Amino acid sequence: MTNNNIKTPQITLVGAGPGDADLITVKAIKALKTADVVLYDALVNEELLNYAPKDAVRVYVGKRSGDHTFSQEAVNKLMVDYAINYGHVVRLKGGDPFVFGRGFEELDFADSFNIPASVIPGISSSIAVAELQNIPVTHRGLSESFWVVTGTTANGKISADLIEASRSKATVIVLMGVHKLAEIAEIFKNEGKNNLPVAVIQSGTTVNEKVAVGTVDTIVDVVKENKISSPAVIVLGEVVSLHPKFQLIKKVYDIVAQG
Amino acid sequence: MTNNNIKTPQITLVGAGPGDADLITVKAIKALKTADVVLYDALVNEELLNYAPKDAVRVYVGKRSGDHTFSQEAVNKLMVDYAINYGHVVRLKGGDPFVFGRGFEELDFADSFNIPASVIPGISSSIAVAELQNIPVTHRGLSESFWVVTGTTANGKISADLIEASRSKATVIVLMGVHKLAEIAEIFKNEGKNNLPVAVIQSGTTVNEKVAVGTVDTIVDVVKENKISSPAVIVLGEVVSLHPKFQLIKKVYDIVAQG
Repeated sequence: MTNNNIKTPQITLVGAGPGDADLITVKAIKALKTADVVLYDALVNEELLNYAPKDAVRVYVGKRSGDHTFSQEAVNKLMVDYAINYGHVVRLKGGDPFVFGRGFEELDFADSFNIPASVIPGISSSIAVAELQNIPVTHRGLSESFWVVTGTTANGKISADLIEASRSKATVIVLMGVHKLAEIAEIFKNEGKNNLPVAVIQSGTTVNEKVAVGTVDTIVDVVKENKISSPAVIVLGEVVSLHPKFQLIKKVYDIVAQG
Repeated sequence: MTNNNIKTPQITLVGAGPGDADLITVKAIKALKTADVVLYDALVNEELLNYAPKDAVRVYVGKRSGDHTFSQEAVNKLMVDYAINYGHVVRLKGGDPFVFGRGFEELDFADSFNIPASVIPGISSSIAVAELQNIPVTHRGLSESFWVVTGTTANGKISADLIEASRSKATVIVLMGVHKLAEIAEIFKNEGKNNLPVAVIQSGTTVNEKVAVGTVDTIVDVVKENKISSPAVIVLGEVVSLHPKFQLIKKVYDIVAQG
């Protein structure tokens, strides 16, 4: 008896982009169309699952804060197990798989089982979320570089790199850091950057998008007023002054200054 | 006499991605399909022009080094002029429009003529080119952040931010810097980072892709041997040690060390 259904195991890590389902790439869609299994994260737009064949297995492996149903180890094992038993596994990850996505660990794990694995980049929220608020991460005269830091490291703390970043002239982008915003603002205050423009953007590129714009001194209050919470991107730098809301802030400052 | 052909002026900046035509987003394709005019850069994959309607005007405004036919000012004016006379202009730019792309200046210029303008993010070579060589910009235990710097500022010099970046623990990514590789290596040598792994990737994500892997001390020679030139992305950081070619380098070092 021959089983014609035995497929060659294969794993493709796919970047799902920042939220807007149209910010997926053609290459990602092609991978989804040949998927036997899709393992997808919490921040992935579920509309994207429609690109997979109807009979493909869809498995939610989301890890939201405080809901540790699936550890990274569990996801790794699930991914390999599905590949061996079903064939082509698409591991659909929010944003880009290699930007704080632990994507390389997943590739590496697949490799240890000799399963062919590759990665398809996604639009990273680190650049695109600010961009769709018309804030460029670089701009002549304002910023010649940008530095992307995580607000949540393996030990749950803010990355020590953020202290270095606060001393630099780079545009600083913090992912997964909004629950530590007060602490982050303190770091910049310690460098005397109280008036540095800051934007916090929740659920960027989606219909639920919300934005708060202020300075290092005011941003914690503005975020509270606007009830902004996770998932959010924090942008600190002179480029934030290009946002229309900051133009209003500047006008208010000028009026106050003129007394 | 009425002219039914007068269209409302509109400008969309579109990120074309790093080179591979399949690394374009669905949102970008939708914009191209409604284009009356496409203004495209040197590093854009020309296959993407096929998404535009057959009768759309296609204008090459590439600015390669040493060929300053189109200044930024000329591109801005052309863009607005076409929008007023033809309707929807898609400004198709390599990578992401807001990563050293002067995209915000183009939006701003359109705005000064009251022409509705928006931006569609693209896959940035700053993340994706290393990624498709299986080098993650972040990786637990090796890097908690990444810093993207330009090798060519407005005055033609390396950004001063690169000196700060060389002192940081961030993965450092330099765009448009391969012609200054020796100078960049010196900056890292001055910080005692002679053995820091470095990769230089030319024409990443395309069929012409070439990669050189070495250390701060050896990379200039390796790049020469491999005849790697612009356009290229430079990645400096411990994450480059994850590249298969670096594993070989480590083995050679070990053999030499054992004498």
